Amino acid sequence: MSSTTGQVIRCKAAVAWEAGKPLVIEEVEVAPPQAMEVRLKILFTSLCHTDVYFWEAKGQTPMFPRIFGHEAGGIVESVGEGVTELKPGDHVLPVFTGECKECRHCKSEESNMCDLLRINTDRGVMLNDGKSRFSIRGQPIYHFVGTSTFSEYTVVHVGCVAKINPAAPLDKVCLLSCGISTGLGATLNVAKPKKGSSVAIFGLGAVGLAAAEGARIAGASRIIGVDLNSGRFNEAKKFGVTEFVNPKDYNKPVQEVIAEMTNGGVDRSVECTGSINAMISAFECVHDGWGVAVLVGVPSKDDSFKTHPINVLSEKTLRGTFFGNYKPRSDLPSVVEKYMNKELELEKFITHEVPFSEINKAFEYMLSGAGLRCIIRMDA
Amino acid sequence: MSSTTGQVIRCKAAVAWEAGKPLVIEEVEVAPPQAMEVRLKILFTSLCHTDVYFWEAKGQTPMFPRIFGHEAGGIVESVGEGVTELKPGDHVLPVFTGECKECRHCKSEESNMCDLLRINTDRGVMLNDGKSRFSIRGQPIYHFVGTSTFSEYTVVHVGCVAKINPAAPLDKVCLLSCGISTGLGATLNVAKPKKGSSVAIFGLGAVGLAAAEGARIAGASRIIGVDLNSGRFNEAKKFGVTEFVNPKDYNKPVQEVIAEMTNGGVDRSVECTGSINAMISAFECVHDGWGVAVLVGVPSKDDSFKTHPINVLSEKTLRGTFFGNYKPRSDLPSVVEKYMNKELELEKFITHEVPFSEINKAFEYMLSGAGLRCIIRMDA
Repeated sequence: MSSTTGQVIRCKAAVAWEAGKPLVIEEVEVAPPQAMEVRLKILFTSLCHTDVYFWEAKGQTPMFPRIFGHEAGGIVESVGEGVTELKPGDHVLPVFTGECKECRHCKSEESNMCDLLRINTDRGVMLNDGKSRFSIRGQPIYHFVGTSTFSEYTVVHVGCVAKINPAAPLDKVCLLSCGISTGLGATLNVAKPKKGSSVAIFGLGAVGLAAAEGARIAGASRIIGVDLNSGRFNEAKKFGVTEFVNPKDYNKPVQEVIAEMTNGGVDRSVECTGSINAMISAFECVHDGWGVAVLVGVPSKDDSFKTHPINVLSEKTLRGTFFGNYKPRSDLPSVVEKYMNKELELEKFITHEVPFSEINKAFEYMLSGAGLRCIIRMDA
Repeated sequence: MSSTTGQVIRCKAAVAWEAGKPLVIEEVEVAPPQAMEVRLKILFTSLCHTDVYFWEAKGQTPMFPRIFGHEAGGIVESVGEGVTELKPGDHVLPVFTGECKECRHCKSEESNMCDLLRINTDRGVMLNDGKSRFSIRGQPIYHFVGTSTFSEYTVVHVGCVAKINPAAPLDKVCLLSCGISTGLGATLNVAKPKKGSSVAIFGLGAVGLAAAEGARIAGASRIIGVDLNSGRFNEAKKFGVTEFVNPKDYNKPVQEVIAEMTNGGVDRSVECTGSINAMISAFECVHDGWGVAVLVGVPSKDDSFKTHPINVLSEKTLRGTFFGNYKPRSDLPSVVEKYMNKELELEKFITHEVPFSEINKAFEYMLSGAGLRCIIRMDA
């Protein structure tokens, strides 16, 4: 038991005081974990688009001050009442969505959309008492998706913590707590391309490239990357992308371009942009008879997916996925093992690294579209 | 070898001379089968909506005179050059779509949409020479979907003929050559409900009731029938339907009614009406996380399937199917065996029977919505 068990911990956190304004490194107080909660020492975190999206707070109810961050790796500092699966010292990945192991979704083999701990971006407090564990000079600071990893210490529900192999380097596998697992699982768990098949990936950001990595691991022979930025093709080759299509280069719908390239359509497609037109193209570009299109990207609230039903009746399948259909606690340890046995490559996703004190640089890189993932070292 | 082998056969056929006008029983000439064709003696045929649809010819290019009919059972009379899988005397079901066993679709485990023999409602001739095998006083008569079973003898491509157990009663299993297999396979091969699950069936005609029969065979515990005609519920109980919803009885969308009945949605749904609104409801009424909606009904050309993409992203699946995903030659024999071992009940689909001479009565029954299937006895 560490000397901090049961005590309030004072530590550094990057606080977002206002929408779109640079984070401020502050000394915050982190209360001890309550029932079914664990307090984690975060060692590495990275920045994902979802953090930026809610930090900008365009269109959502603003909730500030708030501590963002949800892609991270850390070590259990202490556990609350009723926690038996984790103990201080365990290496873990906090996850923005959870697995209670009790609800119908957790008991279903097919779903990972836990009734109790499914992502809730509008909740800034812990479930147990409806309060925050963070405060600064007595003022509560909101949590973000139950993780708030832009802090040296954070408190998370036990259902949102995956215990992983302690030999795994946390500065790499921290990426698996969100974006990379989302793309990888979309391909491996949902699209399930066969060896030698063709796969189209819409959007070549980190999630799309993780989907391409999944297609490479599955043995796809043609991986067609689709992106409006042709500059991304070169980088994408490292992830197994073999061909590139920029819809801007054609005066016909990209689904027609892909159908011509592939004698009728690809075997699988994975949509990672959230653009409604890309979603429709991703569905219509798969081959009749066996094509499967998987939607990953989150669309805007007013979008409408529209297609002629004959596209469905010709035996195409449209499937959605959330967090790559991985159940966080049950499945993430095996994804870490895929990295450990060198099946999955993570290094190529890491294009930047900054000390915690320079966390705002990570926001700048993402906003300017530079690189894929920026690792933030909490000890620096 | 029968004495008619290689000869033109003169026999009775019900000829549609004009769109929407009663068929006329005529003496026609049926030429011998050419390469990869077989000539069948039809013993029983039944009437399906698709026959009526093309006979009415509202919206399609009219193609007359034509011999309709595609649900049937018969016996091989003679075979053309290159046919090795069938011989005179074999009991068979002709099918409106085929299986060449050579193309990418036939070689794929996932598809039954054969490139060579996929249904083609616009072709009124045989593939081998682009001509009809039927004529009357020297005038050619068009074929319909490669089967034209409203004739005592017909010529069919070998790829559109399923050889079945000769012990199977053809006056019952003839139903398996179209509608019943379509509905049954949609549930058993595509929706695949688990034992104890809930299934919604949209449309309680013969295809929808066959889908319900599939759900009953799969062990579904709740089978919710949806139809605008409440009179159908009583009949539907025989097919395992346990609950009934008439969308007209509610002032909210039927998907909401079903979600309330089932704590969030059914596990599976099967759409058999072809109405675009029913298609959308069938998709939106399945449970998030694991729900699968299967579309069977054929929509009108101008329809657009429209849904908010969040319905897909919440891990719902939308799948289309054609002929229940059965490959005609490979799979129909085993469906016949399901009837033979009493797993599948066919008798309850047969509500009328008429002699061939009264075939127009079968059209009247269907147009008035009376009953499910009318068996037409060719020998009477």
